[in-house]
Amino acid sequence: MELEKPYLLFLGDAPDQLAAKTATGIADWRPEWCVGQFRLPGCKADIGLNDVSIDEAIALGAKTLVIGVVNSGGFLPDSWTDAICDGLAKGLDVASGLHGRLQNFPAISQAAEKHGRALHNVRHSEHVFTTGKGHKRPGMRLLTVGTDCSCGKKYTALAIEKAMRARGMKADFRATGQTGVLIAERGAAIDAVIADFISGAVEWLSPDNEPDHWDLIEGQGSLFHASYAGVSLGLMHGAQPDRLVLCHEPTRTHMRGLPHYPIPELEDCIALNLANAMLTNPECRMLGVSVNTSALSPEEADRYLSETSARLSLPCLDVMRGGADGFLDYLAG
Amino acid sequence: MELEKPYLLFLGDAPDQLAAKTATGIADWRPEWCVGQFRLPGCKADIGLNDVSIDEAIALGAKTLVIGVVNSGGFLPDSWTDAICDGLAKGLDVASGLHGRLQNFPAISQAAEKHGRALHNVRHSEHVFTTGKGHKRPGMRLLTVGTDCSCGKKYTALAIEKAMRARGMKADFRATGQTGVLIAERGAAIDAVIADFISGAVEWLSPDNEPDHWDLIEGQGSLFHASYAGVSLGLMHGAQPDRLVLCHEPTRTHMRGLPHYPIPELEDCIALNLANAMLTNPECRMLGVSVNTSALSPEEADRYLSETSARLSLPCLDVMRGGADGFLDYLAG
Repeated sequence: MELEKPYLLFLGDAPDQLAAKTATGIADWRPEWCVGQFRLPGCKADIGLNDVSIDEAIALGAKTLVIGVVNSGGFLPDSWTDAICDGLAKGLDVASGLHGRLQNFPAISQAAEKHGRALHNVRHSEHVFTTGKGHKRPGMRLLTVGTDCSCGKKYTALAIEKAMRARGMKADFRATGQTGVLIAERGAAIDAVIADFISGAVEWLSPDNEPDHWDLIEGQGSLFHASYAGVSLGLMHGAQPDRLVLCHEPTRTHMRGLPHYPIPELEDCIALNLANAMLTNPECRMLGVSVNTSALSPEEADRYLSETSARLSLPCLDVMRGGADGFLDYLAG
Repeated sequence: MELEKPYLLFLGDAPDQLAAKTATGIADWRPEWCVGQFRLPGCKADIGLNDVSIDEAIALGAKTLVIGVVNSGGFLPDSWTDAICDGLAKGLDVASGLHGRLQNFPAISQAAEKHGRALHNVRHSEHVFTTGKGHKRPGMRLLTVGTDCSCGKKYTALAIEKAMRARGMKADFRATGQTGVLIAERGAAIDAVIADFISGAVEWLSPDNEPDHWDLIEGQGSLFHASYAGVSLGLMHGAQPDRLVLCHEPTRTHMRGLPHYPIPELEDCIALNLANAMLTNPECRMLGVSVNTSALSPEEADRYLSETSARLSLPCLDVMRGGADGFLDYLAG
């Protein structure tokens, strides 16, 4: 997948910060690709880039308008469509990680054709997948799993890739969601694959490798999320991980989007993830817990990490505060 | 979904009996809809209907050629395409449960258009699904789960529907695979849904109902099948079952299609299925074990059923030998 850079990140009228997590991910990991954020009235997200109009973005060299926010229900509000068509008319390509293809919106499709611009649907892979086979593949694999959706699985995998490469290890982040695909410029959005081929798609994106090479595979959802656990499990079986890292946001009180479901206990989450992971890799072990402490004070964060580490007898880190290097000493354990 | 009846069941050159399980399911549960089976040279399956040619089938009144066999890899051999086009030319509609749409095969598409015949893709629902919500729904639900694929989940759900209706209970079989959809003439093939919407699709096909109504939901795959466990889990969470029935074929030595994976122990299978099912229904319980004893002698079958029942303290039945009524006395337990 090749998009023309740099990008203008479109946040629409995102109802909260998490709704803009695609834009946030690109801004955090590829800031050099971004000229600014473009927000509509009512937008509740702010990813910390300069607010720029489409004209200003073009003056700054922007080539692609990246829709960095999720919509609900698969339709686009008129305010989004108008802004997207304005971008196309002024010479930007458009990239989207939404389930629906941009081509399916007549106004957008017509504007792209009229102005000769490209429409990219990052969530849709061109690859034809098959069912998973469950064969042991050479190379080492680490999968990030979560107590919930949107709690740090992608950031943790990217941070471990960075820490491994800093030590001179062979390591590749393997993207399984639209944001990860935009950051890595390869991968596949597993939640958009036909259900029968979830595991097969992950086997494809993490193929045979050298014995000392690590794939850092981005997990999706949570085995405890009633909406998405099937995706999480199929992804896990295709990943065939040697190590898991459990990602957690300690201030959340219920599962994302499901106020009637509590967050699971870390102990239960470790047990169920290992029980399932051992189907395709009986040697799988839990490497540690990656905690998103952004909602805690530094003192609270330190106390939470040390108490949790002692309780679980596992390394517990916030990879966005101190990096992921602290996990690597335990890889051989 | 409405197909014109009766059917001619196409078995192609099925490599074994299980490959023709769609045809077998229709012949076993809706024999009054079938005029015969149509096999190509090399076919290793026989579903016990008369072998008839396309001309003979039409003379017997056949209206639709139903592709009752799975292919491998998504392509159709020329011998199949030729036979299907011959059926279209002679006036039959064609229905398929394959992943690929019939319209995507140019020869078939052209023949259907030329002769004014309909092409039905049973695996593809017209419905636009959303993500699952995990809300408790009124009505009772029973889900059949398996130690493996193709071990009796559909037959068990259909047999329980039959037994419940014979007792005057309110009960509906809910089809989740192409064969079930062909038998019930409604439902959705869950393995062909976009991965994000697995649970939501099951919530849609088993909606709110009367408190004393039972949905008998057909399970898919197995939590222990490395290729399909994600589908099984997403289906389970959307089904939100009050009761599970574990289906098992006792002579199988490895997971279907995966010779490097052994069949799990019944105890492990019960534990993992209950642990996962309790996420969306903490009241879920295991009702019993449904054993496909067709490969055993009657004496072996009786011994296996009684020993297993004693070991697990659960009713164990072969629903195709004595019906499913034996499960119903335990529903309140």
